[in-house]
Amino acid sequence: MSAIITLTTDFGTKDSFAASMKGVIFKINAQAQIVDITHEIGPQDIWEAAFALKTSYVHFPKGTIHLAVVDPGVGSGRRPLIVVTESYYFVGPDNGIFSLIYQEAERLRVHHITASHYFLPNPGPTFHGRDIFAPAASWLSKGIPSGNFGDVVEDYVKLNVPMPKKTANAIDGHVIHIDRFGNVITNISYKDIQSLVPEGTEIGPAAISLAGKEIKGLKKFYAEAAPGEPSAIINSSGFLEVFLFKQNARTTLSLKRGEPVRLSLPLA
Amino acid sequence: MSAIITLTTDFGTKDSFAASMKGVIFKINAQAQIVDITHEIGPQDIWEAAFALKTSYVHFPKGTIHLAVVDPGVGSGRRPLIVVTESYYFVGPDNGIFSLIYQEAERLRVHHITASHYFLPNPGPTFHGRDIFAPAASWLSKGIPSGNFGDVVEDYVKLNVPMPKKTANAIDGHVIHIDRFGNVITNISYKDIQSLVPEGTEIGPAAISLAGKEIKGLKKFYAEAAPGEPSAIINSSGFLEVFLFKQNARTTLSLKRGEPVRLSLPLA
Amino acid sequence: MSAIITLTTDFGTKDSFAASMKGVIFKINAQAQIVDITHEIGPQDIWEAAFALKTSYVHFPKGTIHLAVVDPGVGSGRRPLIVVTESYYFVGPDNGIFSLIYQEAERLRVHHITASHYFLPNPGPTFHGRDIFAPAASWLSKGIPSGNFGDVVEDYVKLNVPMPKKTANAIDGHVIHIDRFGNVITNISYKDIQSLVPEGTEIGPAAISLAGKEIKGLKKFYAEAAPGEPSAIINSSGFLEVFLFKQNARTTLSLKRGEPVRLSLPLA
Repeated sequence: MSAIITLTTDFGTKDSFAASMKGVIFKINAQAQIVDITHEIGPQDIWEAAFALKTSYVHFPKGTIHLAVVDPGVGSGRRPLIVVTESYYFVGPDNGIFSLIYQEAERLRVHHITASHYFLPNPGPTFHGRDIFAPAASWLSKGIPSGNFGDVVEDYVKLNVPMPKKTANAIDGHVIHIDRFGNVITNISYKDIQSLVPEGTEIGPAAISLAGKEIKGLKKFYAEAAPGEPSAIINSSGFLEVFLFKQNARTTLSLKRGEPVRLSLPLA
Repeated sequence: MSAIITLTTDFGTKDSFAASMKGVIFKINAQAQIVDITHEIGPQDIWEAAFALKTSYVHFPKGTIHLAVVDPGVGSGRRPLIVVTESYYFVGPDNGIFSLIYQEAERLRVHHITASHYFLPNPGPTFHGRDIFAPAASWLSKGIPSGNFGDVVEDYVKLNVPMPKKTANAIDGHVIHIDRFGNVITNISYKDIQSLVPEGTEIGPAAISLAGKEIKGLKKFYAEAAPGEPSAIINSSGFLEVFLFKQNARTTLSLKRGEPVRLSLPLA
Repeated sequence: MSAIITLTTDFGTKDSFAASMKGVIFKINAQAQIVDITHEIGPQDIWEAAFALKTSYVHFPKGTIHLAVVDPGVGSGRRPLIVVTESYYFVGPDNGIFSLIYQEAERLRVHHITASHYFLPNPGPTFHGRDIFAPAASWLSKGIPSGNFGDVVEDYVKLNVPMPKKTANAIDGHVIHIDRFGNVITNISYKDIQSLVPEGTEIGPAAISLAGKEIKGLKKFYAEAAPGEPSAIINSSGFLEVFLFKQNARTTLSLKRGEPVRLSLPLA
């Protein structure tokens, strides 16, 4: 058995935090396959971690264990969890970091990890990534049933995930992420846009307004946009994205997360 | 079979792009061994990726698959390629990213990837790293012959790689890379310099001029240089490099890629 | 045999240095399991590498080979070493990078690597990480006895590690590290503090002074601190740490490594 364990944290790669977690995992399961999703989540930015997970978890093999630690409440009463869906496991703190998983899962079971014999001996109150979550994930990867870690709970924490608002010919959403290239990702999905138009109709004539700019139409690929022209596209995760070809839309348009965005279609 | 697949991209490590590629690879070949060369290539900087590959690919075991995705033309007509040399495979877009490989290969065969049954289902037009290149590399690592992916092409894209110009006792080149330490790497090679002098002669008395500075002679190792003294050395890839011991030559000398550099030897 | 080799370097992840080392390792031992501790050590910052190792090495399985390359003296007379303790191997330059290991090891044997048939052919004078240390670590991971690499030496280099100074009711130490979150780690350990008070006594009433600030008492976990309040805690490595909950103590308090810190307890 060579289960994959992915890591999503705000620990950075300059300190040895993530490496200590990996050591702990290998001490328990020398056959584990560890894959970094990212350690560059902004400090304490639970939402950003939720988004990084959402855009990647489904690309991993069935049975993958996704370990996520952005954990400002470490050592307080917040619970450690194992989340079991139809295809994956998730291990991390009960602070909403798995909110977007809860939304998408077809089947869902959430365990409160209490079986302390699966922790490192004498876990401290400041680094549960190393002392509780890494060992729990590694034992899980060795085939310990999720039920052995603790009871099922129903009152797990869900972040309030603001959904776009639809009117007859428009959708109001906001910027949820800005990527490394400065591309600006909104919470308006292709599905949302499709629902505005009769089945089979093109969504080409959409107009997007954002930060005082008007963008006409959707591009099919990045290189289709003229240099310097703010443009929109449906991105690889199925979301409406605003970009400038070979430029940084974030800095050029002075955008940040939370910025409102509207997509409208001409009335039929 | 546990083939190595290396990754060279401009995706950064803050977003989940690289992780999604890894998930896709493992879904197809759970035994793949993935090694990051770098994900910190400057956005769309094809040359920088070519250089990162050139300085590392040969250190990997024979049969390694080098997957490189810096791909501003994604979704447009630019072709996906598999490049086969005497010892390695390369998978990536046909935009010149493998130009330095083409220069060095003794044997070379380039396939246009067209066999879409090796792609993810319904590949989108914005993330071929995940939808086309990662699955192609992973199927290749499972032993699918390169010929199965598509026909051989001859008109693949080669970047114009400016070579240094030699006169009787001088070589004119330019800065091609600046590394993390601020060391300034030029396109003048040890071989170029050797060709200026009779066989067996020392190249010690070389003079290097760069950004208005004159550097006398070549150091053998970094610690040989006096503090604060701009110095030159043949680096670990066989190129002339300008450095300041324990300092950053880039910031101290205000240098950037493209800066002209001249090496001259006293006339015999 | 699937020995783990960890890497700690100042090579960054933008250049291909670390990747070249990994290629070299896999060429010799295709079964090696490579884990990055960090490549983000500040250029030439031997102390920082020593600290990264100290806080992580013990979490890895027995037999792990910790390869560390921060090596300003590369190519000069400084020796390449293999360090053998009761549980781990360490491979790197003789410049003090293993000083904190020397302090903690119960058993210690240090070999000067001289057996050049374990090097890459024709090692250069500028990149021993690739040409000497990586191959030595990889051969070691294949079971070559440490004694085969060279003779035992006793005069290996130890950094001067300043220890905190204790008086009857106070300890004077200094800041030794600042982590990604801006948390400020001192060289005052829990053990040091415990030694000030009668066995079984609480250390709660400790006062910490640092950069003109007075901090009263120790928190048990981060979320216990009020927003904006400079606070202290015993961290996950057993050291006194100053932090601001969900803020960056380094920037808020303008701190840097070396800053003096005093912990005092009321006289009994």
